[in-house]
Amino acid sequence: MVMNEKEIASRWMYKENWNFAQVPPAGDFVAYGKALLSCANGDGTISQAERDWVIGYGAAYGAPSSVLEMLHSYAGGEDVVAVLDAAPAVKMSKRNIILDAIRTCAADGELHPGEMKAIRKMAHVVGVDDWATEQLLHLYLEEQALKAKRIALIFPDGKPY
Amino acid sequence: MVMNEKEIASRWMYKENWNFAQVPPAGDFVAYGKALLSCANGDGTISQAERDWVIGYGAAYGAPSSVLEMLHSYAGGEDVVAVLDAAPAVKMSKRNIILDAIRTCAADGELHPGEMKAIRKMAHVVGVDDWATEQLLHLYLEEQALKAKRIALIFPDGKPY
Repeated sequence: MVMNEKEIASRWMYKENWNFAQVPPAGDFVAYGKALLSCANGDGTISQAERDWVIGYGAAYGAPSSVLEMLHSYAGGEDVVAVLDAAPAVKMSKRNIILDAIRTCAADGELHPGEMKAIRKMAHVVGVDDWATEQLLHLYLEEQALKAKRIALIFPDGKPY
Repeated sequence: MVMNEKEIASRWMYKENWNFAQVPPAGDFVAYGKALLSCANGDGTISQAERDWVIGYGAAYGAPSSVLEMLHSYAGGEDVVAVLDAAPAVKMSKRNIILDAIRTCAADGELHPGEMKAIRKMAHVVGVDDWATEQLLHLYLEEQALKAKRIALIFPDGKPY
């Protein structure tokens, strides 16, 4: 039943978070993972906490095992534009790659101005303009605020775990 | 590597969504699942879409296989208060059980006034007052609005899947 569970979880995640009727094909997980790590790596460094976030994120959405293995070691250096041109559905998702790059860079505690500058530069490379990147940063901050509000409402006396 | 992937996904989900430092123990998944299905079933019916939502939700958070099996067939009828009294960390999470009951009842498309009435009644049973339930409903609606805003910002030309 284990593989089945992974598929059930993956379908639920895409429906719950995106209203997607289906899970992306394996090749799109590869392209998305490469593009995300490349954009998060715009400043030339990706910490272990950042890489762990990307691996956990991939696992939670049901990325194939081979893709998770790739994420463990992928060092970037490929032409991101060529990666996206070869995967049209991922190219359509380019704004989400930038939103996820923001999340990745915030995963080790704080989003530094230098990291946002590098993300803006990578956004230009994949065709996301400054207006959209500002909207994505604002959305990220709104999501974080709503998460904090939810945790405070659910656990007024402190978290159980 | 498959079990490891499930554990990685589960840890990521609890950290990302709740800032939990650890995954709840198996017994808490059992108690939470029983309490959620009982609360969502306050009006006496749980549709297949609602049950599927709960199973997918459990799978996404890494519930043990035995718990997922239980969720497939659990019909309620137990004393919910006794279930919560036996699981203190789940009892601390009672407001989230009500928030998730709202999500479950909305899973088949719409949240009906009759469903909210039944949820308020079950909230009283588990010790969540009307003020908190209204805050939880408001939070649910805020989350749905932010999700719609995110999808519109990410996919201005339509979704890829």
